[in-house]
Amino acid sequence: MNAPLLSVSRRTRSTPFSGRVEAAGVRAYTVYNHMLLPTTFRGVEEDYLHLRRAVQVWDVSCERQVELVGPDAARLAQLLTVRDLRSLTIGRCAYAPIVDDDGLLINDPIALRLAEDRYWFSIADSDVALWAAGNARGLGLNVSVREPDVWPLAIQGPEAEDVAALVFGDVVRTIKFFRFAELSFHGHSLIVARTGWSAQGGFEIYVDDAEVGAALLDEIMIAGAPFDIGPGCPNQIERIEAGLLSYGNDITRADTALEAGLGNYCSLDAPIEAIGIDALRRERTAGITKRVCGLLIDGERVPAQRDPWMVSAGSGSVGIVTSAIWSPRLLTNVALAMVNVEHLTIGTELVVTAPDGDRSAHVTNVPFDGAVQR
Amino acid sequence: MNAPLLSVSRRTRSTPFSGRVEAAGVRAYTVYNHMLLPTTFRGVEEDYLHLRRAVQVWDVSCERQVELVGPDAARLAQLLTVRDLRSLTIGRCAYAPIVDDDGLLINDPIALRLAEDRYWFSIADSDVALWAAGNARGLGLNVSVREPDVWPLAIQGPEAEDVAALVFGDVVRTIKFFRFAELSFHGHSLIVARTGWSAQGGFEIYVDDAEVGAALLDEIMIAGAPFDIGPGCPNQIERIEAGLLSYGNDITRADTALEAGLGNYCSLDAPIEAIGIDALRRERTAGITKRVCGLLIDGERVPAQRDPWMVSAGSGSVGIVTSAIWSPRLLTNVALAMVNVEHLTIGTELVVTAPDGDRSAHVTNVPFDGAVQR
Repeated sequence: MNAPLLSVSRRTRSTPFSGRVEAAGVRAYTVYNHMLLPTTFRGVEEDYLHLRRAVQVWDVSCERQVELVGPDAARLAQLLTVRDLRSLTIGRCAYAPIVDDDGLLINDPIALRLAEDRYWFSIADSDVALWAAGNARGLGLNVSVREPDVWPLAIQGPEAEDVAALVFGDVVRTIKFFRFAELSFHGHSLIVARTGWSAQGGFEIYVDDAEVGAALLDEIMIAGAPFDIGPGCPNQIERIEAGLLSYGNDITRADTALEAGLGNYCSLDAPIEAIGIDALRRERTAGITKRVCGLLIDGERVPAQRDPWMVSAGSGSVGIVTSAIWSPRLLTNVALAMVNVEHLTIGTELVVTAPDGDRSAHVTNVPFDGAVQR
Repeated sequence: MNAPLLSVSRRTRSTPFSGRVEAAGVRAYTVYNHMLLPTTFRGVEEDYLHLRRAVQVWDVSCERQVELVGPDAARLAQLLTVRDLRSLTIGRCAYAPIVDDDGLLINDPIALRLAEDRYWFSIADSDVALWAAGNARGLGLNVSVREPDVWPLAIQGPEAEDVAALVFGDVVRTIKFFRFAELSFHGHSLIVARTGWSAQGGFEIYVDDAEVGAALLDEIMIAGAPFDIGPGCPNQIERIEAGLLSYGNDITRADTALEAGLGNYCSLDAPIEAIGIDALRRERTAGITKRVCGLLIDGERVPAQRDPWMVSAGSGSVGIVTSAIWSPRLLTNVALAMVNVEHLTIGTELVVTAPDGDRSAHVTNVPFDGAVQR
């Protein structure tokens, strides 16, 4: 039973785009931040090939915004993430891991600075607003924390810029990676960021008005027609190849930011006050015992995965495969795994226990593109 | 598209019982607290009739526990809920609404006191652990907050006590409503509470060991065979008839505890320190403007619902239907709604705009059993 039915209700929130998503033939959803997130349209492999070739529009409304506004917004934003936000000026985005006092991951959002005293954290699948508000309340900070109704729509794929330029004008071409601009769409101002959960390039548009969003989606589809635009969603093959980690799948509440391989986004040498930064500094000194890595898994296509698979090395378990799938382009199974550090040398041979039996596997670099010539 | 497919992954956590649930023929799931929750086995109506007649075992692992342990556990527990916990002695359970400083609902868990300095909040669908830990951290409280792996299994239905007695001995018969005992199962101590999300009576067993849980489920099924035990899950018809509110469906982050009709569980006159209690005291004085109520909706069976339906009274919108379904026993549509207080007199006629058209409806009391003789 790889895909049972999903009972949809008010609690598994629909989005302003759900009607169009269903008219476009969505086959399956997951639930993310208490909200519907499409997972397949024409099939994961067909969606993958199309995403790499053309352009897609994604309903990623489930990337909810946690908004901090007020005199203490900057202080709270920095407390919440171990990423140094001092260089996060207005118009910039930053991948900003949130950890607890033990360095364990609570979320891995993108932070946006909208104004001197106004931030958004565009979150992965956990109720960051409760963590932020609880800390703010306990510390008596002068900041408002809320989760406004903002439904991001992504345009992703090699043709994304041309499509976005037809909708917003050539000004979108000037938006740099991980920057955003406020652009006008039929007189309504929208935040447009050059971000997105793929390695194919594109934009995320933060829709804060349902009717405007519906009109925007229609216009994107019309503008994209010459580019073979199609409906899409974060793609499991593409994102594993790109090494994009999924919170809840590859990294969890039981992993530290360093174990998640997010050291580059943890400003451990910065003189900042951030929850959990001391724990990560201690962990850096002591050394981590496990870390996210890439695996190439031998054999025919792996079966659909719903739980982690054991990784072993002769003597016993040395980790878990957290996400694995067949790559129709690389013609091998690609996977993300959490493996003990003694076994992380590139090329190390390991054994993966999939539901259909044991397979040999090799540790590799992510992203995967260059790794298949092992 | 009432029931699309659900993509299952590590993030939509399976439970120790998922294999057995699927072998038993689960038809659909929802995702609740990032975890699979079955919604249908033989069909909602057949499940309903069976639940009222016999006995069912439910995988309600998604009722996660937020555990508070330490010198400040009692203080934090009371801060978190507007229910007076001073009478919550060891062995007792209490329905304990959690609100923010504006009185708006964050969750409506059941609190259990396990020891002088140890509490569980058995939660509805939001990450209460983050709210609890954030407040504790900000206030500098000496308390540990965590979400242990405990997977509740419920036995519900008129024959539940006889089945539980065969598994745990006649001692279970002495457990009073909303009390729990620690009982031995094959030498393993388990918390067994006389609680559950139905009005049919029964128990919830807090399984803290996956292997023990699997053995327990098997033993319950064997003990229950003479009672026609079957697999089940919280049932949409039964719980609406009983007036059991679903957080995220009937009551949300946008409703206060008083608007949710939970005044009886808000100890507004108690001399306690609780987040949001002052806001609720003010609201009690000022009066609420909307409240949860029951509706009987005329006509044939209503279609499956995925979003709220508008409720109107001549001049315009006066509320929303949050959960509606056909009752095969009462032979009418029963619904829970959030309606402006001017329209809450029992018998008031309103109009419900369902996807298939407008229908007349009448305000009624919940639970529904006595209300159909209007």
